[in-house]
Amino acid sequence: MRQSHLFTKTRKEAPKDEVARNAELLIRAGYVHKEIAGVYTYLPLGLRVLNKICAIIREEMNEIGGVEVLMTTLQDPGIWKTSGRWDDEVVDNWFKTSLKGGGELGVANTHEEALTALLREHISSYRDLPRYIYQIQTKFRNELRAKSGIMRGREFLMKDMYSFSRSEAEFREFYETVAAAYLRIFTRVGLGDRTYRTFASGGSFSKFSDEFQTVTEAGEDIIYIDDEKRIAVNKEVYTDEVLRDLGLDKAKLREAKAVEVGNIFPLSTRFSEALGLTYKNEAGEDVHPWMGSYGIGPGRLMGTIVEVLADERGLVWPREVAPFSLHLLALPGGEVAGNKLYGELVHAGVEVLYDDRDLSAGAKFADADLLGLPTRAIVSEKSLAAGGAEVKGRTEKEARIIPLDAIAS
Amino acid sequence: MRQSHLFTKTRKEAPKDEVARNAELLIRAGYVHKEIAGVYTYLPLGLRVLNKICAIIREEMNEIGGVEVLMTTLQDPGIWKTSGRWDDEVVDNWFKTSLKGGGELGVANTHEEALTALLREHISSYRDLPRYIYQIQTKFRNELRAKSGIMRGREFLMKDMYSFSRSEAEFREFYETVAAAYLRIFTRVGLGDRTYRTFASGGSFSKFSDEFQTVTEAGEDIIYIDDEKRIAVNKEVYTDEVLRDLGLDKAKLREAKAVEVGNIFPLSTRFSEALGLTYKNEAGEDVHPWMGSYGIGPGRLMGTIVEVLADERGLVWPREVAPFSLHLLALPGGEVAGNKLYGELVHAGVEVLYDDRDLSAGAKFADADLLGLPTRAIVSEKSLAAGGAEVKGRTEKEARIIPLDAIAS
Repeated sequence: MRQSHLFTKTRKEAPKDEVARNAELLIRAGYVHKEIAGVYTYLPLGLRVLNKICAIIREEMNEIGGVEVLMTTLQDPGIWKTSGRWDDEVVDNWFKTSLKGGGELGVANTHEEALTALLREHISSYRDLPRYIYQIQTKFRNELRAKSGIMRGREFLMKDMYSFSRSEAEFREFYETVAAAYLRIFTRVGLGDRTYRTFASGGSFSKFSDEFQTVTEAGEDIIYIDDEKRIAVNKEVYTDEVLRDLGLDKAKLREAKAVEVGNIFPLSTRFSEALGLTYKNEAGEDVHPWMGSYGIGPGRLMGTIVEVLADERGLVWPREVAPFSLHLLALPGGEVAGNKLYGELVHAGVEVLYDDRDLSAGAKFADADLLGLPTRAIVSEKSLAAGGAEVKGRTEKEARIIPLDAIAS
Repeated sequence: MRQSHLFTKTRKEAPKDEVARNAELLIRAGYVHKEIAGVYTYLPLGLRVLNKICAIIREEMNEIGGVEVLMTTLQDPGIWKTSGRWDDEVVDNWFKTSLKGGGELGVANTHEEALTALLREHISSYRDLPRYIYQIQTKFRNELRAKSGIMRGREFLMKDMYSFSRSEAEFREFYETVAAAYLRIFTRVGLGDRTYRTFASGGSFSKFSDEFQTVTEAGEDIIYIDDEKRIAVNKEVYTDEVLRDLGLDKAKLREAKAVEVGNIFPLSTRFSEALGLTYKNEAGEDVHPWMGSYGIGPGRLMGTIVEVLADERGLVWPREVAPFSLHLLALPGGEVAGNKLYGELVHAGVEVLYDDRDLSAGAKFADADLLGLPTRAIVSEKSLAAGGAEVKGRTEKEARIIPLDAIAS
């Protein structure tokens, strides 16, 4: 893409009302725009990152047998009353609205109820199970405060998967399959080395659940990490009993601040019972499927990548989620060669952002650092005289000259 | 995809509360699920169709210089009050909600205000224009009644593009470029032969606009078509003056019912003035960009395809939007060959739905007709004896035998 064609501009100053470092940088770089606190528009570069994260998640969910759907934001109160989660005193972050003709509607914050109700029409026999169903869809949560940028919004994209199994054992097996897929996702987006499967509370549904926590000073959680076993325990369940159950030695654990980038949740038959989802087992008896839910917020993941990897000059994107892999800069004397190279790179299928704007070298360098693409290539009179383009990784100190016809590879 | 892996089931009866033919068929075939009137979940097959339609639209919008963003559902009332569209008496289909800490929020039905306000930070000079910005995003409209299935919902996906130009002439040129792209889109999704650019009212923003109307008995509009010129006039502006301006001869026009599958709208400086979006022109003066808006509803398009093409046996999908291009059915004696062929087709990159379920031939045939994939291939003892698979187009009467190793091509 030609940068002259990109409508967003960078800003030197962070907006005054923004306190989260991820949002400050993403707004300055023109990746997102703040509509109201906790509600962000994704601008072209930001949307490209978000889409790449979603594509990785989708691939991994399909790989373990997930089937994708798209459920709705507007929710029938009836099914939520049935499950007991309509009342604002039970779920304290509802957005609600009302129909013109009368009657309230929910603005969805999660989809256990809707999916369980829907499956009553599609599951009847043990032969119809297990099922693993997911979506990547926008959720709404009426948070009193929203100060964490895109890491914790009032409106945010969510990948939510739900499993329906014939037994606790069948559920457990899939639960571990998802846990492994989640670790692959965090590795692929560049957070693998600092993300830990973390034993946590199960909230109101079950005794325990598993979170995936990424170590960062921006995190709101405290976890205790066993570096050897690569697992952790959330402070909320950090008791001698839990440590003993997990076979962890208190002396070997280190404390760290972390952000929850994913969670997996045993739901048992909490929702299949409430909403009357049953199937006939091999003995002909009506039984409730065992359920689990599995969430990852692509926007939160994007914000976490910013918090963890950005440096004093700006954003730093891992190659697999970068909006473009190469930032090509044409400087004086390099315009003709730059144009030609850009055409060749596009033709070769390289994802390249081409800074063809009429700006000073200094302004282009500062923008390139702020935007944070993995590799920068400068074509100028000087670089051409030296034999090609001056190429440098975003976090590297030294550039090297690479012949123009070797850039694509 | 193996059909045994698809969790949806077909239904013989349409749900009683559904009056729209598109929704009746899509629900029976397991493509969508009705949550409440006008609010539909997209199940796996339905989501695949929707995604294919979106991919076509995205390609055509990128081709004419569109840059994609993703704006938000939750809306700050401030910008809408500035434009004069917050009041329910002005815009009568708002869904509104409120923040926990106090204060109303809008649930977005369109995005002129949000985008125009956002661009104040990114447009300052004539060198920053023109800009063409679009999104594919969920809209909400509080319709009193919702009886048209996915053709007119309370919650629906929308591709909305907005143009920002330096002059009326520059705007007009792009407006025509979009009109041409829209006709390509309708052709690609299989509605080209019955879709007409239609002269229509401009509502409150301009004297006229252009709609794209697809002829179908399910349509809510009346249009007058000139078959030779391939344009039409909406009944709402069907006056002698308009016909004269368009050079149309009343005697050559035929009346038809049609559904609006897209519209393009001159906005002039209505929103750039209201929201204070200006740029410096070459003379250094502050001026307001000329705007236009351009909408297509992918779900409405999908519903229209159903209304127009479905027959008494079920859905009929044009190849470019079909969830799978081939429906492979294994019947008794064909299971082993079917499994092998399925593997080969997947490997060859053919999008194939494989009915590997333990059902009668009759049930599989009925499901195949209802699901409506473009081509059906049966592998059975009989077909193998005849030399391969029995292949038939969804709307063809006669099947033919094709050797198994030639199916992929």
